[in-house]
Amino acid sequence: MSIKSAGFEILVEDKNSWARKGLLKTTHGTIETPVFCPVGTAGAVKGLTPAQLEETGCSLILANTYHLMLRPGIETIEKLGGIHKFMAWQGPILTDSGGFQLFSLSELVQIDDDGIEFSSHIDGQKLKLDAKNATEIQNRLGADIIMCLDECPAFGCEGDKLKKAVQRTIKWAEQCKQAHSNPDQMLLGIVQGGTDEQLRSFCSKELIKMDFDGYAIGGLGIGEGNTNMIRTVSATTRLLPTEKPRYLMGVGMPADIITAVREGVDIFDCVLPTRNGRNGYAFTNNGPLRIRNSSNIEDSNPVEENCDCYCCRNFSRGAVRHFFNASEMLGAILLSVHNIRFYQRLMAAIREAIEKKEFNDWAQRQIKNDKYSETQKT
Amino acid sequence: MSIKSAGFEILVEDKNSWARKGLLKTTHGTIETPVFCPVGTAGAVKGLTPAQLEETGCSLILANTYHLMLRPGIETIEKLGGIHKFMAWQGPILTDSGGFQLFSLSELVQIDDDGIEFSSHIDGQKLKLDAKNATEIQNRLGADIIMCLDECPAFGCEGDKLKKAVQRTIKWAEQCKQAHSNPDQMLLGIVQGGTDEQLRSFCSKELIKMDFDGYAIGGLGIGEGNTNMIRTVSATTRLLPTEKPRYLMGVGMPADIITAVREGVDIFDCVLPTRNGRNGYAFTNNGPLRIRNSSNIEDSNPVEENCDCYCCRNFSRGAVRHFFNASEMLGAILLSVHNIRFYQRLMAAIREAIEKKEFNDWAQRQIKNDKYSETQKT
Repeated sequence: MSIKSAGFEILVEDKNSWARKGLLKTTHGTIETPVFCPVGTAGAVKGLTPAQLEETGCSLILANTYHLMLRPGIETIEKLGGIHKFMAWQGPILTDSGGFQLFSLSELVQIDDDGIEFSSHIDGQKLKLDAKNATEIQNRLGADIIMCLDECPAFGCEGDKLKKAVQRTIKWAEQCKQAHSNPDQMLLGIVQGGTDEQLRSFCSKELIKMDFDGYAIGGLGIGEGNTNMIRTVSATTRLLPTEKPRYLMGVGMPADIITAVREGVDIFDCVLPTRNGRNGYAFTNNGPLRIRNSSNIEDSNPVEENCDCYCCRNFSRGAVRHFFNASEMLGAILLSVHNIRFYQRLMAAIREAIEKKEFNDWAQRQIKNDKYSETQKT
Repeated sequence: MSIKSAGFEILVEDKNSWARKGLLKTTHGTIETPVFCPVGTAGAVKGLTPAQLEETGCSLILANTYHLMLRPGIETIEKLGGIHKFMAWQGPILTDSGGFQLFSLSELVQIDDDGIEFSSHIDGQKLKLDAKNATEIQNRLGADIIMCLDECPAFGCEGDKLKKAVQRTIKWAEQCKQAHSNPDQMLLGIVQGGTDEQLRSFCSKELIKMDFDGYAIGGLGIGEGNTNMIRTVSATTRLLPTEKPRYLMGVGMPADIITAVREGVDIFDCVLPTRNGRNGYAFTNNGPLRIRNSSNIEDSNPVEENCDCYCCRNFSRGAVRHFFNASEMLGAILLSVHNIRFYQRLMAAIREAIEKKEFNDWAQRQIKNDKYSETQKT
């Protein structure tokens, strides 16, 4: 029996884990979940045209509100027809609130219950982001899925400081919910609380009362380590309503994704496939490939045997290595295409295993054979 | 009545000029002429995948022997399956002899009748290129059209020095012809002689005696100016056999191409569409567009109205400007795609005008309305 909410339908629930396969219905199309969305920070997934992105099987992309509000600015994107037209992506788009980038990239001037004053990392301009304008900005951008403003404490933050961040996150979520004016957009609340399960529990419960279209788990994948992350994800997903989509923000490596799906997560985003691609690292089912290695010079095999991506169908490892060596853009383009396709193949395999009711066994085999380690994060 | 040689067939000759429309038959496919080929210096047309290149209507691409022999090296390309497989381009490919890049990029050690000693611009390695190995290297690379080694004197070279360069070019052409061992590849001779019509005439006659598969005009577009270039092209094409294809190397701007077609040239190559694209300059029928101009910030029009390229079908000027401003690779990719499509549309219009027997009038209107000036060469 399927479980439904406004924009989300669970089609298959795994009996041996918390994994589920579903459909996320947005204004710009329906997404099969679990889903991975590549990151188009400044309105472009680095190195790929939307046509190439579509060819990888990608159904949802993320854009960063923080970057777009600073450059080219919200008014400009509105005048250019909104975010879908601007990015030339007619499928579903998710924007974050700007919070995370604001904490990691800008110079913070002041943070209090009313919001965050900061200096732009581009030109030093002093600006303020609060729950109300973070929501208005995302309403104006026009993505299909938008996020509440949250306070993202750095890894290691604890005690009163962490508690305060959770309280602000809850208060801001309420203000975002109130400010949200576009029923075509799903608004997701973000659970914070570091690795403190009590705080995560408190935050979850308060957000659930507000009845969001879905719930994100924020503030993970920032240094707490794999075990703490999964423990926190596991504890948090248990508390979230079954019928709403769940989004683990900014995670991550293939094994992390598989493990988090097992804990009931539906949506993922991460810069790894494109960032690693640009740096000459390919994800493959046989583990990471460093294309610049001299062992690839005369290797006429594709980057990954049996991969159906444009790069693997057409180019040898030797050619791709040469493009990196000769600083030809094509190298970064090809490995980014391959890595995004790798992630899409991973998500398709996850969905298929859930569909076939063999996800838990499959996941255990994958994680046991995991060929990626933390050190591969470049 | 059509005029035929081994790999070339002239379908239509313009009555009011020397222009002709034809078919160039190569081992990897037939090319409609006049043709423009984008430059894939190091085995990649900068920023474009072969699939994107094909979508622009491109039928022939050029790769630089000098760059490829230095990196990744001929043996590596052979082991990776030859140049078509290496570049993932199954259509016709043209390689130059390495001469021009050698004169412009490397540190020359010594040049005499036997060949050219030089230091690699990449690692300083001392190497020698002569007629025999320049031909052998191109035989091994496996392009469809290959070029004789020539001496390319810098602009301003005259007197005995220019004469000596022509003599060497002729001698080397003879040695190339003798060394050429692959009947699947067309070998083209290169006419040198600066802007000296007598030397051009001498060089042409000597090369024609050797009966090449086609003839190139080299050593132009290097600073002699538009008038001298066209005068030299005009004088040279008159001497070349009608039934063989003619190639004006490294030229150039749209008006130069139209003028040279009028003088009977069939093949062109130039880095301008991709180089200008990367630098934020677009070719349009209304003249050059500098995408970074602030007037484009909120411009929701395409780069060029009525252009059918991927960029113009999908993106606004405002979005493309933003990608340049935010240093997103996508900006350079989109304008390179547009510019190559612009050149392919230009060549299609040239061929159509010849076909319709109205080329000379059409060409005069185009050149009169030319919106590009020398200053646009960036």
